[in-house]
Amino acid sequence: MNLLSVIKIGGNIIDDEQKLNTFLKDFSQVQGKKILVHGGGKLATRMAEQLGIQQQMVDGRRITDAETLKVVTMVYAGYINKNIVAQLQSHNCNAIGVTGADANLIPAKKRQHPSIDYGFVGDVESSMLDVGSWKAILDNGFVPVVAPLTHNGEGQLLNTNADTIAQEIATALGHHYQVQLIYSFEKSGVLTNTNDEGTVINKLDPAYYGELRQKGLIFAGMIPKLDNAFAALDKGVQKVIIGKAEALHQLLSGSAGTTIVNE
Amino acid sequence: MNLLSVIKIGGNIIDDEQKLNTFLKDFSQVQGKKILVHGGGKLATRMAEQLGIQQQMVDGRRITDAETLKVVTMVYAGYINKNIVAQLQSHNCNAIGVTGADANLIPAKKRQHPSIDYGFVGDVESSMLDVGSWKAILDNGFVPVVAPLTHNGEGQLLNTNADTIAQEIATALGHHYQVQLIYSFEKSGVLTNTNDEGTVINKLDPAYYGELRQKGLIFAGMIPKLDNAFAALDKGVQKVIIGKAEALHQLLSGSAGTTIVNE
Repeated sequence: MNLLSVIKIGGNIIDDEQKLNTFLKDFSQVQGKKILVHGGGKLATRMAEQLGIQQQMVDGRRITDAETLKVVTMVYAGYINKNIVAQLQSHNCNAIGVTGADANLIPAKKRQHPSIDYGFVGDVESSMLDVGSWKAILDNGFVPVVAPLTHNGEGQLLNTNADTIAQEIATALGHHYQVQLIYSFEKSGVLTNTNDEGTVINKLDPAYYGELRQKGLIFAGMIPKLDNAFAALDKGVQKVIIGKAEALHQLLSGSAGTTIVNE
Repeated sequence: MNLLSVIKIGGNIIDDEQKLNTFLKDFSQVQGKKILVHGGGKLATRMAEQLGIQQQMVDGRRITDAETLKVVTMVYAGYINKNIVAQLQSHNCNAIGVTGADANLIPAKKRQHPSIDYGFVGDVESSMLDVGSWKAILDNGFVPVVAPLTHNGEGQLLNTNADTIAQEIATALGHHYQVQLIYSFEKSGVLTNTNDEGTVINKLDPAYYGELRQKGLIFAGMIPKLDNAFAALDKGVQKVIIGKAEALHQLLSGSAGTTIVNE
């Protein structure tokens, strides 16, 4: 099976033009098939402010009303996605920017929650990802750049967490490629002390993770990423790596970051 | 050779939700391979106003400064493009939204003009359209939905007229498919009296066009479209049809609109 790297870049990198450029140059040199998933950073929040649209957050998730969906569609799928694509093309990386609506790549349904109305937020319909479309795009040598939007198949775009999208893609393609999933962001990896970049855990398995969580040593913001990581391993992804975007090549070679394993 | 319809929809249709929905339903039923090229309509102008960005127009072309480029990238490639894609998907049309940067589909260079600085406006590099990428996308059953942006291959997105983009795509693919180019908009076709929808010219050849222009009977706004149409025919496109978006099927069957021919 061919190697496929599914690489997520976090919002803080998106917000920093210099870091983003360096990252994209590194990304363009990654060997084998690859997919880039990007978040939105602060640009969507800033644009919503400029347009006078009030933002509501619940548990770190944006409540996506119709106006907010319009903003994230413009910023994520338009501005950020197409600028990343143009940059990658300048590095001879044949990028093609997509959302989950394009080629029906990521079907989802509007989140139902007993007490909170998240608005136009989509939960991925894991079993319905169009693997044929993914394979057609990848096997023709294109490099998908994925903005964190999905659709419900009835004409409605939905806002979906980019970490989750990366995990869902990695999982769906795990039977067709040898998949490694990389969460790259501003930290050096999973840290036992969030204020000390020297406390990177090199290898994390479920038992150790449970132990660290019990001791309260896992930073709250990291928990969804790690839950996503273990879920991906359970479903056939070979390897999950978490670490600093600036060290992409070292993350891939195993000389930096945290590698998440299942045994 | 397979039939390929390259269909451009004009801005006034984009601005009218009801008409757009009907058009997209009709488009989804068009037989054979197809590409949809859309303009931007008034949404970009409105968004620029909301953001306090002043718009300059010269000869009907927007002067695209950096802030305006950001707005058109958000509105054309983000909001409009992805909503069209989601709608088409709901009609079982396997749409994939692209700009000219994606898959290097439409390389361009920044317009050089002796007296006017158009800003980030791109003139298509006709000989460099990536026919291999177009064919890979079309022959895998995807339906490209093209937002009117191109790139210079060095990381810079550029704003490009949608009529021109439609003509350039039709021309570049004319050696690989039997291409028909359709300009659909709010008028019933090329009219000898712009105020009378009953004066549609059914068939227009270069001699008749020259005659009508000389008599001042061709509406100024139609001239670039017609120049594009004749250029496309000269370069191997089989047929160009101009007419009302609401009559798409009749345009394709030849029972409505103006058919532009070369002899």
